[in-house]
Amino acid sequence: MIVQMKKGAQAKDIKYLQDFLIEKGFGIKDASSDTLCLFGILGDVKSLDMDQIKVFPGVETVTRISSPYKLASKAFKQDPTIITLKNGVQIGGDEFVVMSGPCSVESREQLEIIAKAVKESGSRILRGGVFKPRTSPYAFQGLGIEGLKMMREVADELGMAIVTELMGTEHIDAFVKYADIIQIGARNMQNFDLLKAVGKTKTPILLKRGLSNTIEEWLMSAEYIMASGNEQVILCERGIRTFEKYTRNTLDISAVLAVRELSHLPVIVDPSHAAGKWEMIEDLSLASLAVRADGIIVEVHHEPEKALSDGAQSLKPKKFEQMMERLEKLSTVLDKKVRR
Amino acid sequence: MIVQMKKGAQAKDIKYLQDFLIEKGFGIKDASSDTLCLFGILGDVKSLDMDQIKVFPGVETVTRISSPYKLASKAFKQDPTIITLKNGVQIGGDEFVVMSGPCSVESREQLEIIAKAVKESGSRILRGGVFKPRTSPYAFQGLGIEGLKMMREVADELGMAIVTELMGTEHIDAFVKYADIIQIGARNMQNFDLLKAVGKTKTPILLKRGLSNTIEEWLMSAEYIMASGNEQVILCERGIRTFEKYTRNTLDISAVLAVRELSHLPVIVDPSHAAGKWEMIEDLSLASLAVRADGIIVEVHHEPEKALSDGAQSLKPKKFEQMMERLEKLSTVLDKKVRR
Amino acid sequence: MIVQMKKGAQAKDIKYLQDFLIEKGFGIKDASSDTLCLFGILGDVKSLDMDQIKVFPGVETVTRISSPYKLASKAFKQDPTIITLKNGVQIGGDEFVVMSGPCSVESREQLEIIAKAVKESGSRILRGGVFKPRTSPYAFQGLGIEGLKMMREVADELGMAIVTELMGTEHIDAFVKYADIIQIGARNMQNFDLLKAVGKTKTPILLKRGLSNTIEEWLMSAEYIMASGNEQVILCERGIRTFEKYTRNTLDISAVLAVRELSHLPVIVDPSHAAGKWEMIEDLSLASLAVRADGIIVEVHHEPEKALSDGAQSLKPKKFEQMMERLEKLSTVLDKKVRR
Amino acid sequence: MIVQMKKGAQAKDIKYLQDFLIEKGFGIKDASSDTLCLFGILGDVKSLDMDQIKVFPGVETVTRISSPYKLASKAFKQDPTIITLKNGVQIGGDEFVVMSGPCSVESREQLEIIAKAVKESGSRILRGGVFKPRTSPYAFQGLGIEGLKMMREVADELGMAIVTELMGTEHIDAFVKYADIIQIGARNMQNFDLLKAVGKTKTPILLKRGLSNTIEEWLMSAEYIMASGNEQVILCERGIRTFEKYTRNTLDISAVLAVRELSHLPVIVDPSHAAGKWEMIEDLSLASLAVRADGIIVEVHHEPEKALSDGAQSLKPKKFEQMMERLEKLSTVLDKKVRR
Repeated sequence: MIVQMKKGAQAKDIKYLQDFLIEKGFGIKDASSDTLCLFGILGDVKSLDMDQIKVFPGVETVTRISSPYKLASKAFKQDPTIITLKNGVQIGGDEFVVMSGPCSVESREQLEIIAKAVKESGSRILRGGVFKPRTSPYAFQGLGIEGLKMMREVADELGMAIVTELMGTEHIDAFVKYADIIQIGARNMQNFDLLKAVGKTKTPILLKRGLSNTIEEWLMSAEYIMASGNEQVILCERGIRTFEKYTRNTLDISAVLAVRELSHLPVIVDPSHAAGKWEMIEDLSLASLAVRADGIIVEVHHEPEKALSDGAQSLKPKKFEQMMERLEKLSTVLDKKVRR
Repeated sequence: MIVQMKKGAQAKDIKYLQDFLIEKGFGIKDASSDTLCLFGILGDVKSLDMDQIKVFPGVETVTRISSPYKLASKAFKQDPTIITLKNGVQIGGDEFVVMSGPCSVESREQLEIIAKAVKESGSRILRGGVFKPRTSPYAFQGLGIEGLKMMREVADELGMAIVTELMGTEHIDAFVKYADIIQIGARNMQNFDLLKAVGKTKTPILLKRGLSNTIEEWLMSAEYIMASGNEQVILCERGIRTFEKYTRNTLDISAVLAVRELSHLPVIVDPSHAAGKWEMIEDLSLASLAVRADGIIVEVHHEPEKALSDGAQSLKPKKFEQMMERLEKLSTVLDKKVRR
Repeated sequence: MIVQMKKGAQAKDIKYLQDFLIEKGFGIKDASSDTLCLFGILGDVKSLDMDQIKVFPGVETVTRISSPYKLASKAFKQDPTIITLKNGVQIGGDEFVVMSGPCSVESREQLEIIAKAVKESGSRILRGGVFKPRTSPYAFQGLGIEGLKMMREVADELGMAIVTELMGTEHIDAFVKYADIIQIGARNMQNFDLLKAVGKTKTPILLKRGLSNTIEEWLMSAEYIMASGNEQVILCERGIRTFEKYTRNTLDISAVLAVRELSHLPVIVDPSHAAGKWEMIEDLSLASLAVRADGIIVEVHHEPEKALSDGAQSLKPKKFEQMMERLEKLSTVLDKKVRR
Repeated sequence: MIVQMKKGAQAKDIKYLQDFLIEKGFGIKDASSDTLCLFGILGDVKSLDMDQIKVFPGVETVTRISSPYKLASKAFKQDPTIITLKNGVQIGGDEFVVMSGPCSVESREQLEIIAKAVKESGSRILRGGVFKPRTSPYAFQGLGIEGLKMMREVADELGMAIVTELMGTEHIDAFVKYADIIQIGARNMQNFDLLKAVGKTKTPILLKRGLSNTIEEWLMSAEYIMASGNEQVILCERGIRTFEKYTRNTLDISAVLAVRELSHLPVIVDPSHAAGKWEMIEDLSLASLAVRADGIIVEVHHEPEKALSDGAQSLKPKKFEQMMERLEKLSTVLDKKVRR
């Protein structure tokens, strides 16, 4: 961390701040020139609040020169983290993993139809919401724990793993028992109580990027989970909120590259929530493969117009199969492989 | 809700959709012309998902012509909602209410010094965080329930009410017992489990706007609380996330006007989190009064450079007193009054 | 266009607005129900200002149901527009076109080194700036017309076409004389005088998306050029401004899909300006090919650290060659072909 | 400027960069510690491109510690710049200046009606567009130079000054001849050719902030004008583009405070374009006065529903008078005065 003092800062101000830092165990490295008063703070500045230093009298700017996260950083761990699920699927390795299924679990029958279809097309992780974060209190809120058990049964019959969203700490035991991957949704990316709670489990966590959170904040939320003891975190880019409203959100495809540069954690893409239009899912999935994401999570429904949520962005099984064929074909000339 | 069918939509597609709607109890009002196939959906469309209708074959666009919230809307209740606290302060009436105090409660001594100072300057609601939503897991996380009890004691001694943030459902009973206003923070604005939980209490709720949530989504979150039974909701504009980084967030002062147009709920401004710079707080507070907000919530600290959080945006007691003087003076020529 | 009147709008208000519209030659189609007063405006509403209608007394909302552009729309022209340059390169056909070269033309020597290198790797359109839109008045502003002539000579020697940015109407004749494609930069996307001026030429125009312009506004700017008589417009997505600052801009890859859905005009991607980091260019170019963009425009420099502008996002010739190889390989399994 | 080298940067890389800088005339101040290689660049770094330095091998980060503009900065000139118009109005002094008039000049009659009304209410600067930057090529484009002459005549009869937008360099002589203030619109804020051209005149310039430009970029555009020789620049905040669509743009009221902190130039607010809703203009104007802006620019029309542009955000003369009364009353308790 580098501190620049204002022109005309008084000696006593400089001393006041440096004494404060020394008392906290940090070192000071002066870097002043004739025209500039500047010094570096040495030591583990991770716990130091940049904004706090700015408040000291005479301070002009404070600049961070190391990342505020550690466990999630590539500096800490060079090798890519690979997460292995009970059914053998590996996330973060050389496979391009496809998670798919309905937005909401609506009934046993609906779930079975969709699960069988996506399994047949080569997907081995079943997605489905049983607690739904809906903007409106009047919209369908999900089947709850009953839906979760239903997912487990259907997945077991097909040899699939399941990923589903946990919205609060209340049901965490059931999720640990039944789910293979616990999803933290975009709206809860900075629900720190929830992050700490899932950090105490041993279940892999799918951490969606918040709709207006920076890449750094996203990695800080991963750090919360990891600092609590759970290092199996999968990041998921799902579009950010911008001024452009043609798509539901703006898919930040470059974020996949950024995460790979900054972190060792696997990162997948959710083209369904990013675009909000099923017509775009296939092409955006191909783009995700082209930039070497570790996979995608895609919504599929056999009767999208009757879906209880997100019908507009759900692929029909036939379209899903077509997408899988194109992904497989594309992967023949790439390092990441689509297996089915 | 108005549905426009694509040019060349088939009669069977139109019938399929209209039958689906009629079966759900809605009426249909045709509005087609020679060149356009268009119809309105009649009935209580609040529970109807616009995006779902778009999925039906042949649909071009779907347009909502009524707001998706009801209890929070001015159409539902014309008169402004006035919330009366136990210590007599009214929010939403003709008083411009000033909530103030430290970002975090750090110690009994710190809290007393600050509380006495702001009380003396005319503030009758004490703010203070005891569970802190911090981006970094390594930053100070708050004193917890002990801090909450401390706030209650100090407030009682001074005849003040208290407002403090609840981060999860776990501690809701303690908050109902000790707090006069429960704050839902920006990061939890769409933590729907939490909204439902506080909606079942009888304590007034301060609902901060999410950092990238639209005014409509904000009112939908108020609707969640109200639909659960608690109609005492105070809205709080605290700045939105934009491309501009000179300020911590961008204060959306127009949102105060928008809320007053759309809703009967009181709305206050948090200039501290919006600006992130103490130098701007005074002027932004004057602007809030000028646009007839129902109040402000402001961070105050006697030693901001040693504050455990948000020092950069905290006013010293002397500056706070100066701000109160200017607010009082300004209010002499306005309808909203600053009392002290 | 659909007009919804307020509850309680008076008959005279409705008549006042409808008379105004009828006088202007529009038709009216009533669509009211018991609870709603609603009517459609029939005719060529392209010239009608939606916002103006909102001002009439008693109007609640006005909704546009057709696009505000015509010549640029797919409804107007179904077949993709293919633009053929003098050197035979076609943009908008089955070839994935690669435009490349230095950010700024700095000297004859620099230009030749880079042009030969990119030509060798298969690029047949040379990019290069001679008038530079620089944020700072103290930064290098370009070689001007001399640089343009230099580009023409070097390109002719190598059989390449050239694309270069025009910043004002003053130099338009020289650009028509020397350039194969005239670029309108992001900052000038709504410089309507400039759009009209280039609309009067017969030279193909590369229209970059403004850094915070919607897809609709971008197509409206294309419409400006086309309505002035020049239908050879190539659109270029180059990243939009968002809250995320890790990349220079946020590449809106979905915009390529949107343009293809809404328009017949070719669309290419500029990964260099989107990312601002050379490390990301290769992967983002692959993603552009995967979503079937019509090409890319990429910055290349043999000594990026000494470039007079945009060094950070320039590929060295060796990296460029590697990218071309990967693009070629990927294109073997796609419809768009990389030829070299 | 501070350069941090990567861990493990080689001695030859450090030397290569430092030699490059020394050759350019800069000094080097080492600030390395045991764990960090860091140095400052001394000298006039204004012309140095931060991004270019990042390209050198081994560089981790480059941090600017001084502003990239000079003439516009408070460091350069402490006293506020006051601009005096021919009719005696001063901008930047203790008066809160109200510029007002129609969005577009439509006819001599229309202009006279509106000009007389606003004059009567106390406005002494007449605004009006004669070249209109319209998103659609099919919308009214303005009366051109004829409209400008009309404005001059009407203004002279009433003793008013005029402010009007120049869109291209072609008509600059006429604007210098007829206008008191030349406006550079938001869409042209980075039309650098235009900035340089008006920088060569002696007419005061009203520089609107671009709809997605940072405060720093805005001041850099002012710097362009000033570096060309014209130091009479008035800044105008007119709302920025964000995700929120309830208002046309989001008024960044804090930008007024930021400009006053960073620069000596006067800054006014355009609530009409910010809000896009006439209902909000009055309150936003009061807020602008409360934060000590140097004035406002407001659209007024006697028949807004028949206005050829921006009717939705135009005040009727009666509402304008009411606003002026409230501004005057408010100013009695503030330092900035409304005179009429």
